[in-house]
Amino acid sequence: MKFDILSLFPDFIEAFFDHSIIKRAIESGRVEMAVTDPRTFSKDKHHHVDDTIYGGGAGMLMQCGPLFDAVESVLPEKGPRDRVIFLSPAGQTFTQDKAKQLYRDYDHLVLICGHYEGVDHRVEEYLADELISIGDYVLTGGELGAMVIADAVSRMIPGVLGDSGSAVTDSFYEPILEYPQYTKPADFRGMKVPEVLLSGHHANIARWRRKEALRRTMKNRPDLMEKLTLSPEDKKLIREIVQEEEV
Amino acid sequence: MKFDILSLFPDFIEAFFDHSIIKRAIESGRVEMAVTDPRTFSKDKHHHVDDTIYGGGAGMLMQCGPLFDAVESVLPEKGPRDRVIFLSPAGQTFTQDKAKQLYRDYDHLVLICGHYEGVDHRVEEYLADELISIGDYVLTGGELGAMVIADAVSRMIPGVLGDSGSAVTDSFYEPILEYPQYTKPADFRGMKVPEVLLSGHHANIARWRRKEALRRTMKNRPDLMEKLTLSPEDKKLIREIVQEEEV
Repeated sequence: MKFDILSLFPDFIEAFFDHSIIKRAIESGRVEMAVTDPRTFSKDKHHHVDDTIYGGGAGMLMQCGPLFDAVESVLPEKGPRDRVIFLSPAGQTFTQDKAKQLYRDYDHLVLICGHYEGVDHRVEEYLADELISIGDYVLTGGELGAMVIADAVSRMIPGVLGDSGSAVTDSFYEPILEYPQYTKPADFRGMKVPEVLLSGHHANIARWRRKEALRRTMKNRPDLMEKLTLSPEDKKLIREIVQEEEV
Repeated sequence: MKFDILSLFPDFIEAFFDHSIIKRAIESGRVEMAVTDPRTFSKDKHHHVDDTIYGGGAGMLMQCGPLFDAVESVLPEKGPRDRVIFLSPAGQTFTQDKAKQLYRDYDHLVLICGHYEGVDHRVEEYLADELISIGDYVLTGGELGAMVIADAVSRMIPGVLGDSGSAVTDSFYEPILEYPQYTKPADFRGMKVPEVLLSGHHANIARWRRKEALRRTMKNRPDLMEKLTLSPEDKKLIREIVQEEEV
């Protein structure tokens, strides 16, 4: 999988490439990541890439030319498994399902990061295949969005996570939150690990984990419960939780 | 406003501090940002901060001790305007309203970044005031989430955005997407800026912008339309859009 990120802040994007799982994924050759600064394609002698807004308005807008040129430089011949994504608050909200779809359908993602005041609309109209927003909040640029997509998609690639079991058991593959997990010490300043987890009784541990995953989801993200397929055992656990929480 | 980010990847967080608007906000003294590596508080001679999971399971978990110590180091006396936030998929989904609330209610945010395999549950139970998730997708750590919160909250601080008008007119203050914006050139490879924007006729431009903002929202984010308070003029524009789109 290849990611090309177009950003006016290449140092920040490179720091992302150089950390944690992403760094290991690049080093192992499973993922290729590169950053291109649209400023390189400015025709202006001061390397400006923005100008005033037609029709009036405060601030400056990123011009479309340097972005068209930058996309063409990383994508000289576009095939069906290449995808140009523009990070925009007007985009479809990014989700784990969307990450899966990008992983499945494409080999090369070109991620265009906008400027905090805006980007010439022709980028959205003619250059991007699709617009993605990472959530209903306003950020100063598309950089964090591009990193979110690169991170969420990369970790689906087999071998990218050190432990191959991790990706599939994460939250959101099944729409349920993870059960509470504990590590040493068993007692930290009087805050104790639940006894069942120290018991070595596998069936009890499995039951406790499922129940606490359900409880956590019911409390924190009740909206996810509707999307969950419940087994008869789940229903029994939910009845227990409801009784316990009422006490 | 002060942000303390607790992360095992301090270089990556520092690259965030060093870019764009955030850099300017720090330099102007409007925002203070610092990173603390929980590894500093490891009692282990190899500076490990993770261990195996009680009750079994693949992978390693971040221990609670170094995180409790790290929070206490940046927050020796906690007041009502300090807030400890743990980035977690089990958290409340971050939104622009949440950003506003954090900006209004606190002067100091401590953002705890988890490890991709998980964090001892006592951090959630006893250390964090609240859990926040930036969206329904899985990331390798809390770093991007902490940056998203720091970015979205910082830009609300007066003077942080160069042009003081920008923050309030952004998408999501009113739940409508921004109208399409264009800058030079007026014709790029045959892709033209709409004529009305070159006309200088302010009333027509204002009407076009409102109409296109409504059209874009109806197309891309129909869910936002329900939250929007429509004027009689808006309703008229919507009728026009519906007719145009049906043709």
